Amino acid sequence: MSELVIKRFDSTQADFSEQMDQLLAWEAVSDDKVNQIVNEILKRVRAEGDSAVVEYTNRFDGTSVDHLAELEMSAERLQAALDGLPADQRKALEIAAQRVQAYHERQKGESWQYTEADGTMLGQKVTPVDRVGLYVPGGKAAYPSSVLMNAMPAKVAGVKEIIMVVPTPGGVVNELVLAAACLAGVDRVFCVGGAQAVAALAYGTETIPQVDKIVGPGNIFVATAKRAVFGAVGIDMIAGPSEILVVCDGKTNPDWVAMDLFSQAEHDEDAQPILVTPDADFINAVEQSIHKLLPTMERKEIIEISLRLRAALIKVKDLDEAMEVANRIAPEHLELSVEDPESLLPKVRHAGAIFMGRYTAEALGDYCAGPNHVLPTSGTARFSSPLGVYDFQKRSSLIMFSEEGASVMGKVASVLARGESLTAHARSAEYRIKE
Amino acid sequence: MSELVIKRFDSTQADFSEQMDQLLAWEAVSDDKVNQIVNEILKRVRAEGDSAVVEYTNRFDGTSVDHLAELEMSAERLQAALDGLPADQRKALEIAAQRVQAYHERQKGESWQYTEADGTMLGQKVTPVDRVGLYVPGGKAAYPSSVLMNAMPAKVAGVKEIIMVVPTPGGVVNELVLAAACLAGVDRVFCVGGAQAVAALAYGTETIPQVDKIVGPGNIFVATAKRAVFGAVGIDMIAGPSEILVVCDGKTNPDWVAMDLFSQAEHDEDAQPILVTPDADFINAVEQSIHKLLPTMERKEIIEISLRLRAALIKVKDLDEAMEVANRIAPEHLELSVEDPESLLPKVRHAGAIFMGRYTAEALGDYCAGPNHVLPTSGTARFSSPLGVYDFQKRSSLIMFSEEGASVMGKVASVLARGESLTAHARSAEYRIKE
Repeated sequence: MSELVIKRFDSTQADFSEQMDQLLAWEAVSDDKVNQIVNEILKRVRAEGDSAVVEYTNRFDGTSVDHLAELEMSAERLQAALDGLPADQRKALEIAAQRVQAYHERQKGESWQYTEADGTMLGQKVTPVDRVGLYVPGGKAAYPSSVLMNAMPAKVAGVKEIIMVVPTPGGVVNELVLAAACLAGVDRVFCVGGAQAVAALAYGTETIPQVDKIVGPGNIFVATAKRAVFGAVGIDMIAGPSEILVVCDGKTNPDWVAMDLFSQAEHDEDAQPILVTPDADFINAVEQSIHKLLPTMERKEIIEISLRLRAALIKVKDLDEAMEVANRIAPEHLELSVEDPESLLPKVRHAGAIFMGRYTAEALGDYCAGPNHVLPTSGTARFSSPLGVYDFQKRSSLIMFSEEGASVMGKVASVLARGESLTAHARSAEYRIKE
Repeated sequence: MSELVIKRFDSTQADFSEQMDQLLAWEAVSDDKVNQIVNEILKRVRAEGDSAVVEYTNRFDGTSVDHLAELEMSAERLQAALDGLPADQRKALEIAAQRVQAYHERQKGESWQYTEADGTMLGQKVTPVDRVGLYVPGGKAAYPSSVLMNAMPAKVAGVKEIIMVVPTPGGVVNELVLAAACLAGVDRVFCVGGAQAVAALAYGTETIPQVDKIVGPGNIFVATAKRAVFGAVGIDMIAGPSEILVVCDGKTNPDWVAMDLFSQAEHDEDAQPILVTPDADFINAVEQSIHKLLPTMERKEIIEISLRLRAALIKVKDLDEAMEVANRIAPEHLELSVEDPESLLPKVRHAGAIFMGRYTAEALGDYCAGPNHVLPTSGTARFSSPLGVYDFQKRSSLIMFSEEGASVMGKVASVLARGESLTAHARSAEYRIKE
C-alpha cells in the first residue's frame, strides 16, 4: 500500500471555504435497487405479517423456523446472558448504566400550566410514547453500549414497553448485547433484522406488536426502511458515518490526540477524524504519532482508509478561528483539548457533544460519562440534538378558557377567521361571545 | 346531491376496532410522477441555483423576471402591508401575536450543568438554529395565523434569520400574510413557491441563503420536496388533513358542537370531524344541528364532502371509554366538551392539543389562545408534539472530566471498549488513567 498521506489545510488559503465543502461532502444515497427491495419487503410484511417475516428471516439469516414466536428470546435467556458475564464486564456495564440513567433523569420534561387573570388556563402536558422499537445490528457493529444508550432514555421517559429486534445470522448471538438489553430493561427481544424487522415494528404482525417510534442504527436496508415508514411511526435520525473534530492549543500529548482521532476512524472506513489547531508544529507532531501508533492498532486497516480518505489536519490562525471552523463543520464529537475549555464554550454554536479539556477523551463519552452517544452526524448538529429523554416524550397543548376569556378572545378569533374566510371557525368562536 | 349521511359507530359492536381502523386509514402517497418531477427540480436548483429557480417560477407562477432578486419583497413592502390593515384586523393580529409569544416564552429550553464530587462536570447546552426557512402556501390555504404560528417560536428560540417563501401566482399577494410576516419579525421574503422554493432553502442559491431547518405547510410537491431534502436540512412534520375529536357528555349546546365539527371540516374535503359521546340522544341532536346549520355555511360544499367521507358519530359506554377511543385515535385536536374536563385530563395519553370545557372552541386555539396551531395529524400525536420553541433549539452534551474522574472512568470505558473490540477507544481512555 502507498504511503499514508493525510490531507492538510490552512485557513489562510484563498479557497479554504471550498476545500471545506469538498472535505465535508457526504450523502447517503439509497439507490433504486435498495429502494425497490425495501419497498417490496415493507409491502409484504404489512400485508402478510408473521409469515413474511419468517420467510425473509429464514432466507437472509439462515434460520429455519416455522413460527415467528420461535425467534423470541425469553426473559430468562436475557437474564442468563447478564449473569454469565465476566465480573469486570458486568461491573463496568452497571456503572455505565447508572451514570447514563443519572444524566438522563435531568432531561425529563415536566408538564406545566398557568392561569390568567380571567381564569383561563394554558399549559403543556408531557407524556411518554407508549411503545418503542429498538433496532440493534447483528455482526461487527453490535454494541452493547448502544443498547444502553437507546433503551435507557426511553425507560427514563416512562415508555411502557421496549421491543428490541436484532438479527442473529447463522444463529450467532452477542451475549454482551443481550446482557445490556436485560440491564436496560428491554421488555421483549426478537431475533429478526433488516427491513423486515423495521416493517414488523412499524405495522405490527400477529407476534410482534406495533410500536410508536423506532430507534437504533442499521445498514442501508434498515435506514431505507426507517425512512420509508416515517410518518406511520416516529424514527430517530438516520445516522451517517461517525466524525470527531479535535480543537487543540498544541499542548496536549500528541499521542493522546492521535489515539482520539483513531477512536473515530476505527468505527468505519468512512469515518471522519479532523484536527484543528493554530500550532503548525503540533500538526507535525500528531502526524508523527499517527505513523508511530497506527501499526500497533488492531483495526489498522479500517483506520488507515478513514485517515486516507476523510481525515484532515487544519491549521488556523487562533482558537477563535478554530471555533469558526468547528461551527462550520457542526461536528458529531467536538473535543476542546485546550487549557481553558470553558472560555471556548460560549463560542460553540453547533456540536453533538462537547468534550472539554485534555482528560475528556471522546471514548469516555461513548461509554460511561452519562450523556448519550447517539449524536447528530454529517453537520446535522446544525438542527438536531443527541438522542435523549425528549425523544421519547411528547407534548400536548392545554387550553381551558373561562367563560369571560372565551368571550373576549372569541371576538379576536372571529376577526382573524373572517380575514381568512374561515367562517365556521368564526361562528364557532362567536357562539362563545357573551351577549 | 344525495342526502347527507354521516357514519355512526357504537363501541359495543363486535367489529368496532376494525371499523375504527377503516375510519382512520389515511396515507399520503407521493406517486412516482410527483417524485420524478420533484427530484428533477431539486437536482436542477441544486446545480444551477438562481437561474433554475427563476425559470421554474416564471413557468409555474406566470412571472416574467430575469433575476431572482426581483422576487424579493422589501422590508418597506412588508411594513406597508401591516400599516395598510383595517384597524380591527391589525388589533386582532397584535393580540394574537402577543399571546402566542407569551405562551411560547415558557417553552424555551435552558442550558444546565452539574458537577460531581470528583470535579467532573456534565451538562447540556441549548442553542438556537441559525437560520430557518418558512414555507407559506399561496392561494386559498394562505393563512396569516400560520405565519405567526411558524415564525414566532423560531424568534422566541433566538433564531437569527427567518427566510419566508410564498408563491404569488399571477402576481397575487396576500396582504394579511405579509402583515403577519412583518409582525412576526420575518427577515426576508421571496415570492417563490413549490419544490423550487424548498430546494433553494435547502441548498442555497446565489440569492436565497441556505437555511438549517424548513417549516410550514404546502401541497404535495412541497411535502415531497421537504421529505427529500430531510437530512440536508431539518424539517417539521409532514402534515396530513386536519382532524377534530369532540368528546361530549351530551350537555353542550348541539349547535356549538356541530359548528366545532364544521370548523375542521371547512379546511379540506379530507378533514376528519368526529364526535364521541355516551349519549345516544345527543348524537341525534348534533346531527339535527348539522342538517340545520350546513345550508347556512359559506364553505358548505367542502364541509359536506368532509362530513360524508370522513366524519363519524361514535356512541360509547361512558366517558372513560370515550377517552380510550380518543387515545386510540391520538387526534390533532381533542375537545373535552364536558362538565369537569380536568378530571378527564389524566386519562389523555395522546393528543396534539386539548381544548377543555364547553367554552374552549377549537377555533380559539387556532388563532389567539397562545399555544401553537401547527399540530401532529393522522395519529402522529402518538410520537410527536405541537410545533414549538424546542423545534428551533438544539442541544449539545457537555462533558468535562476532572483528572481524577477520567482516571476512574477510563478503566470502565476500557473494559467496555475491549468488550466491543474497539481498542483505539480503549487505549484513548487508558491514556487518561493515572499511573
